[in-house]
Amino acid sequence: VYSPGTRFINGLWVIGSDLMNLMRSKHQSTNQSTVNDEMLFLTDLLPAKNGEEPTMQFLLEVVEILTNYVRKTFDRSTKVLDFHHPHQLLEGMEGFSLDLLDQPESLEQILVDCRDTLKYGVRTGHPRFFNQLSTGLDIIGLAGEWLTSTANTNMFTYEIAPVFVLMEQITLKKMREMVGWPDGEGDGIFSPGGAISNMYSVMIARYKHFPEVKTKGMTAAPRLVLFTSEHSHFSIKKASATLGFGTENLILLKTDQRGRVIPDDLEAKVIDAKRKGYVPLFVNATAGTTVYGAFDPINEIADICEKHNIWLHVDGAWGGGLLMSRKHRHKLSGIERANSVTWNPHKMMGVPLQCSAVLVRERGLLQGCNSMCAGYLFQPDKQYDVTYDTGDKAIQCGRHVDIFKFWLMWKAKGTEGFEQHIDRCLELSTYLYQKIRNRDGYEMVFEGEPQHTNICFWYVPPSLRGLRDVEERRQRLHKVAPKIKAMMMESGTTMVGYQPQGDKVNFFRMVISNPAANRSDIDFLIDEIERLGQDC
Amino acid sequence: VYSPGTRFINGLWVIGSDLMNLMRSKHQSTNQSTVNDEMLFLTDLLPAKNGEEPTMQFLLEVVEILTNYVRKTFDRSTKVLDFHHPHQLLEGMEGFSLDLLDQPESLEQILVDCRDTLKYGVRTGHPRFFNQLSTGLDIIGLAGEWLTSTANTNMFTYEIAPVFVLMEQITLKKMREMVGWPDGEGDGIFSPGGAISNMYSVMIARYKHFPEVKTKGMTAAPRLVLFTSEHSHFSIKKASATLGFGTENLILLKTDQRGRVIPDDLEAKVIDAKRKGYVPLFVNATAGTTVYGAFDPINEIADICEKHNIWLHVDGAWGGGLLMSRKHRHKLSGIERANSVTWNPHKMMGVPLQCSAVLVRERGLLQGCNSMCAGYLFQPDKQYDVTYDTGDKAIQCGRHVDIFKFWLMWKAKGTEGFEQHIDRCLELSTYLYQKIRNRDGYEMVFEGEPQHTNICFWYVPPSLRGLRDVEERRQRLHKVAPKIKAMMMESGTTMVGYQPQGDKVNFFRMVISNPAANRSDIDFLIDEIERLGQDC
Repeated sequence: VYSPGTRFINGLWVIGSDLMNLMRSKHQSTNQSTVNDEMLFLTDLLPAKNGEEPTMQFLLEVVEILTNYVRKTFDRSTKVLDFHHPHQLLEGMEGFSLDLLDQPESLEQILVDCRDTLKYGVRTGHPRFFNQLSTGLDIIGLAGEWLTSTANTNMFTYEIAPVFVLMEQITLKKMREMVGWPDGEGDGIFSPGGAISNMYSVMIARYKHFPEVKTKGMTAAPRLVLFTSEHSHFSIKKASATLGFGTENLILLKTDQRGRVIPDDLEAKVIDAKRKGYVPLFVNATAGTTVYGAFDPINEIADICEKHNIWLHVDGAWGGGLLMSRKHRHKLSGIERANSVTWNPHKMMGVPLQCSAVLVRERGLLQGCNSMCAGYLFQPDKQYDVTYDTGDKAIQCGRHVDIFKFWLMWKAKGTEGFEQHIDRCLELSTYLYQKIRNRDGYEMVFEGEPQHTNICFWYVPPSLRGLRDVEERRQRLHKVAPKIKAMMMESGTTMVGYQPQGDKVNFFRMVISNPAANRSDIDFLIDEIERLGQDC
Repeated sequence: VYSPGTRFINGLWVIGSDLMNLMRSKHQSTNQSTVNDEMLFLTDLLPAKNGEEPTMQFLLEVVEILTNYVRKTFDRSTKVLDFHHPHQLLEGMEGFSLDLLDQPESLEQILVDCRDTLKYGVRTGHPRFFNQLSTGLDIIGLAGEWLTSTANTNMFTYEIAPVFVLMEQITLKKMREMVGWPDGEGDGIFSPGGAISNMYSVMIARYKHFPEVKTKGMTAAPRLVLFTSEHSHFSIKKASATLGFGTENLILLKTDQRGRVIPDDLEAKVIDAKRKGYVPLFVNATAGTTVYGAFDPINEIADICEKHNIWLHVDGAWGGGLLMSRKHRHKLSGIERANSVTWNPHKMMGVPLQCSAVLVRERGLLQGCNSMCAGYLFQPDKQYDVTYDTGDKAIQCGRHVDIFKFWLMWKAKGTEGFEQHIDRCLELSTYLYQKIRNRDGYEMVFEGEPQHTNICFWYVPPSLRGLRDVEERRQRLHKVAPKIKAMMMESGTTMVGYQPQGDKVNFFRMVISNPAANRSDIDFLIDEIERLGQDC
């Protein structure tokens, strides 16, 4: 009955041709003969009278473009990107102009715009895209996002998002169970990304210890200081600036050569701060740093926080996913002692962007910290249990539905499916590590088996291998990764990140979160670095 | 050639049946016979080997569910919602459980989950959904969101979002031109909603006048005070709490009976604050208040701000769309004198959620305020012009692509299409106003023609019409709107918001932003209120 192959594709092409015919023939029976009259426009779609058929046809045309893109994304013979400089795209490519006009474009042109937008973009789901912590294109997650867009609602009240609000509640509870809080008790919210989730954690800590800041401002509190490691994400620094602490009141902690906080340094700095009359409010421990993928020793940090009555936040934006793996969750040992946790399913768990949660151990703080009791949204006299309205917990008013795709993926994979995905990514990074650790021309940025999928390394081109002058070598090595990366992007074959860190010159940071990647892609990356880098 | 009707729908049903057959027959040739082996799972989809056909089939099944939903959304014979209480949905409806398990569900069940999620939700695009400022389901916007989900990338760098970053730049410039800044000069960013956009404006004002707060915290500044009207959105209050000003340092301004700021009250309060030694930093003028739809007199406010060197922000989250209308843009007269503007295309302009911009007149402030120069993202030694990387302007790290749907809608409608939409919504609200202003049983909350599409009114049921006791009448009237709203939701026929405001008891706030609504829907709403309210 079912014949695989191109039949469905053909089917859609036939439908596509129908739309074109419809577009061109629509007004043939009328006397008008201008060009525009032969084309369909937005005004022919729903809610227009008789708009249903053109609407269905148009949406199917779009879906054809999108499904073609999905197929190509997973096809290793396609490029990861077709790079153009800003001025090239701004000048306009053939048939594709970014300019916005007073007059409408035809639906036919809109479809061209859609195709070209994808053509000049980057295939973040391509098996050879390793450039960010968020990679991959999960089909269930994608379907979830399509549905979310179609439902087009807002998380602020149960009234208009009943199912999504409950899904969020249930999913947050599961996440808290994975963290290890008894019965999954506590609170939380999905926010527009890890930086905002981390900002929430600082706000809640402040509210817990100095609730009067909400009404009286920061001047009502003593000088408050925050602690995080040199290797932590810059969002902690952003939060300290945004919330009125000031970046100078964020104290950076030393790390070992693997990028993990040295607990003794924390304790010394806490004591020092207290001696100066400052009040240590908040410690951020990172579970999976951005560059090295390091896991701070949470238990030892928690001991210090408990002793000095400091809020402990764990930024597991990147590493939180490992909680789903029985093999790797020990790296977050102690996380159950945290007061709050950031965990981004849109990173290691492959959920489409954006999907980030902040989890809070104590109930009521989120609400207490952020509630302003807006009468027009959170009427107390609704007919349902209004404790399900989430809007007053948020710093936002409208809040995008980020939960459905994640919930649907959890349904489709089961907890065990996430576990398999994570174990597989870590195995693949071990494969890369084993492959290059002793390979000619490679130097590892830190010693020992990486804790996460981050593999940090220098590629040393042949011309630098015999170089004795240490400073000249450093300076030249610093330029290698950017040069290789630029060539990679021009050729469009693969993408991987690079950066300096502290006194270390530019090195590659390889990360694996893409379920489509396999060993052949790792081999390809290494071949490509060597091919492009050989003359550097 | 083209026969309208159900052919395409049938076509998809055939394809659907194919998936079911595929699901059931997949393992028939093997010896395994457990139930699971007869079904398809996520693991059969891409990137699985031979995953392409099941992936395409699955996505088409999803699209069929979604297009059916779209058709029904515009069909007035369907309900706006099928209301259930939280406990009912939590207990589980037949075949639909919200619980997350360790084991995966089959794709067949995933499709059921998708169908049921939509079934128990609210059709925010339905012509009779008037509950929020964001309503409607724009087909081009929907297509744009589907594409955005498929591209699944991140706005922080040009590197991985080249086209979207440029679209954002071009669109922000167009918006600044509409505001009236010379040559559209200035800066801006799309943020996750109007509350965050408003928060940005306060942050930037602070950075402009007291840049040292970024490093030293709020204690480095004198006591700063902010001003906004009693009728303004609660997000200004949230910002004052979040950013460390304290809500007590937000001074509320009196309004006239139409909900517009009284400029004399602003000037008096500014002078009073200065006399107390406080520093007036920021004034928010609202263009389109949430409840009354009032437009503060921007020019008069701007005079005061200029005189006292205070940052002027215009919160046009709701009213900004009127800038697109030659007929109505005079209501925002003076907006070109603002230092910053919030404008949410996801409200009056019908763009799917989320789509909110903050516009800033002075270049460089956003960057200066928020930059932390994260080395792993914003490498200075990239091969392209890195001024196109937007990430360091944001308080976020990852940032969702909110621009594409808006850009695509602008292409498809043209500026003139937005103008027509806005003029039409305002005409429709005038129709409602004319219909009820002298109708038996209706009382307007404020006198005179509304400025925006907000129509605020009490419905007075027959039993209250002859009531002389003012206080009893107030108390009973307060309960009417919630009671009618509850019945509306139970019957699922329409939805409209209500709230008290100041000393005014619960009244209905009707708003029109839905392009699908027409006069028949307004008539329906009034009939429905009278039908449901007659025995209140």
